This record gives sequence, structure tokens and C-alpha cells, in this order.
Amino acid sequence: MVGTVKMVIAVRKDLDLGKGKIAAQVAHAAVLCALKAEKFQKKLFAEWIRTGQKKIVIRLDNADALLELKKKIDTMGILTEAVFDAGHTQVEPGTLTCIGIGPVEESDIEPVTGGYPLL
Amino acid sequence: MVGTVKMVIAVRKDLDLGKGKIAAQVAHAAVLCALKAEKFQKKLFAEWIRTGQKKIVIRLDNADALLELKKKIDTMGILTEAVFDAGHTQVEPGTLTCIGIGPVEESDIEPVTGGYPLL
Repeated sequence: MVGTVKMVIAVRKDLDLGKGKIAAQVAHAAVLCALKAEKFQKKLFAEWIRTGQKKIVIRLDNADALLELKKKIDTMGILTEAVFDAGHTQVEPGTLTCIGIGPVEESDIEPVTGGYPLL
Repeated sequence: MVGTVKMVIAVRKDLDLGKGKIAAQVAHAAVLCALKAEKFQKKLFAEWIRTGQKKIVIRLDNADALLELKKKIDTMGILTEAVFDAGHTQVEPGTLTCIGIGPVEESDIEPVTGGYPLL
């Protein structure tokens, strides 16, 4: 029995990126996670697609907060991917902009990410 | 010989969505297009992934403008996907929010979408 499955994308709020830039970075994270899940988390992936690709976007203070969250997620065995911007425009090349988490069961991830504000 | 390959996501600007909501919708379009391309446009997909998943996000006036653009893209045989929001939060269920285009060769899509402003 699978509960609600969703993807969580955590974005840095200290970079002052434009709306379009944020959207592209979040999309990058979502595509990376989706393609990885398609291969290695087939059950969660299928359920996530079947139920309409639920996603939420949260914001964290800075790169350190993102990396700390990613480390925690890694130890839980949940799929996560970091996005480093190519830096053609608004930021330095190699800047960490966001991380994608999941698709994952809501009940597994909520205790970790539930406390962060939505973007 | 393949030139620059990118994905274009076109967003409605008349909906007044929040940053996080826009990002989630754009990500939805990107995932739909990526998964479809992975199956049906293997060469473009591989090149797009290899070169770092280039994406640009543009804005159009309203749903009619999006649908008109989508129709044009369809007739060109370029991959495109529409995103209709489930409407749990900021919009009515079934609202068209954005369309994804590609991955596609820049030289094929630029004449059609190059004139629209970035989001």
C-alpha cells in the first residue's frame, strides 16, 4: 500500500534569482530526480506519475542549509539530486541553486521538510 | 551534426501565480517533455542531457496565446506538452498554466519562440 507520493524541491532564497531562473532551476532538479527514479525507484515513480506528479517547492536560507538537508536525506536512502547552475547569466558558474528530493512517500519526507516555508 | 538543443517552457502571465507555483508548473512541463523525448526523440534527448539540459522560460499573454503557439509547434512536428493545473490551490482545476516545447534544436524553434520575452 502506497500513500501520497510527492517530489519536494528546495530552493535557496539568498540568491535573489528571477522568477524564470528559479523555475528553470526547479525544473532541472525535477527532471534529474524523475529520470533517476524512473530507473531506480520504479514503484514510487509510477505512482507519482499516476497521481499527477505532485510537487512542492520550499525555500531554505542558503547553500549550507541545502547541503545539510541533502546529507540528511541521503542517509535516509531517499533519492536526491543537487543542481549547480552553469552560470551563464545570473550567478557564478557552479553555484548550488536547489535540490530535488523524491518522488517519495509523503509520510517519509514530511517529518524532515514539513517545517520549511513554501517558496 | 546536432546544434544547440534546448527546451522552451512558455508560461501564461495573466494568472498571477506565486513564484513557487510557477516553478512547480514549469517543472511539470519539463518532466512531461523529458519523459516523452526519452522515448520518442532519443537523439535530441541524449544531446539535451549531455549538454546540461538547457531550458528557457518565456511568457505569453494568456491561454489563447499558449494554445495558438502549441498548435503551431504541433504542425512543425516538434514535441510539446500542455500542463493543466490540478487546482488544489491558486487556480481553478483544469486551468492551462504552461506548455513545454522540445528538447529541440535551437535553430528550429528560435524563429517561432525567439520573439517572446523571458519570464
